[in-house]
Amino acid sequence: MKIAVLGTGTVGPTIAGALSALGHDVVIGTRDPKATLSRTEPGAMGGPPFAVWHAAHSRIDVATFTEAAARADLIINATNGAGSLQALTAAGAANLAGKVLMDIANPLDFSHGFPPSLNPVNTDSLAEQLQRAFPEARVVKTLNTMTASVMVDPASVAGGDHTVFVSGNDAAAKETVTGLLAGFGHRDIIDLGDITTARGAEMVLPIWLRVWGALGTGAFNFKIAR
Amino acid sequence: MKIAVLGTGTVGPTIAGALSALGHDVVIGTRDPKATLSRTEPGAMGGPPFAVWHAAHSRIDVATFTEAAARADLIINATNGAGSLQALTAAGAANLAGKVLMDIANPLDFSHGFPPSLNPVNTDSLAEQLQRAFPEARVVKTLNTMTASVMVDPASVAGGDHTVFVSGNDAAAKETVTGLLAGFGHRDIIDLGDITTARGAEMVLPIWLRVWGALGTGAFNFKIAR
Repeated sequence: MKIAVLGTGTVGPTIAGALSALGHDVVIGTRDPKATLSRTEPGAMGGPPFAVWHAAHSRIDVATFTEAAARADLIINATNGAGSLQALTAAGAANLAGKVLMDIANPLDFSHGFPPSLNPVNTDSLAEQLQRAFPEARVVKTLNTMTASVMVDPASVAGGDHTVFVSGNDAAAKETVTGLLAGFGHRDIIDLGDITTARGAEMVLPIWLRVWGALGTGAFNFKIAR
Repeated sequence: MKIAVLGTGTVGPTIAGALSALGHDVVIGTRDPKATLSRTEPGAMGGPPFAVWHAAHSRIDVATFTEAAARADLIINATNGAGSLQALTAAGAANLAGKVLMDIANPLDFSHGFPPSLNPVNTDSLAEQLQRAFPEARVVKTLNTMTASVMVDPASVAGGDHTVFVSGNDAAAKETVTGLLAGFGHRDIIDLGDITTARGAEMVLPIWLRVWGALGTGAFNFKIAR
């Protein structure tokens, strides 16, 4: 599949690399490709600078948000939640229309320090904001409830015996996303329902951050035991 | 232990019955014992009327919030989250002082229908509200992330292979609560940290409700797979 991954933090390159390794035709979208490729500072989570990562993943093109979205059949929003609407606006509504938009971002507000606040909450979600802003995109919320390494390598935690959620209004889009998740090795994929159920998935973040603190590692995931 | 369980919905009697069966000296606290004991309508979740339940659990006294709290060493808040502050105010600060206050309620607002909103959220929690209102009580948030039957019989789901969280400022209080949880059969008890971490535990409710909807049963629980 032709996939655009928007975002060059920890999550974007992790997802892009994994999808490329699975044989997908992947392009990374960023605001300013030249600036991104010349970055030499380490990533926020201590990962390698983007340029170092990209040298090892040269099959993956780096393009503007617009170009990346235009040439893809499926777009993954892996941007910072606070900047997602802006990034997708740059990608362009026309380049999202009719396509699956897999939203894996979290609308965390770190402006008041740790722990961050989640905004919106309760009666809205980032996924719904994106669906409203781009009504012709087929938004599916998923993967936001775990750390990047677990998204693409579920077997790295408890042999993959844990759960991932999908939320969205379009059944066929959820089926496409479910296929990608299964490709990563996810085995327990729970369809929570329409896009409003993304509120619940996003509101998991505050306890995720506290479990991370309690365990001292992000190498965990929620399993719905039943 | 002498334990007061405040609340006569589904959760209170479930917890009270289980603690009594484990040999604890349990009293149920309610606003108006006479009214509670004369209730003949079924419970909100389709359980038996309180009087029917109580006939089968006659060892458990039913008293006012004040009396129940006064004679207990540990108080469990199993009231409706929207009415918890009022119930505990009726119990009386003096009757809570120095005691463990195990808060298992959720501040859900159903006034706008389903799904309910959670209030407070993000920068506050019901548990923190209670801790602020009763600074001499030793509040521990726990058990709010699962349905009543799973609280007291974790083995009923996946053989008990799932997780319960505790949040609170008082280490000894958390140890006492951990002992009670272990008494129910909980094996994976994660200490999230101080009382502010209850925000995360409470913000789990929206996805809990959606998983309940997706599975068609409340007989599940979160496990932190790691």
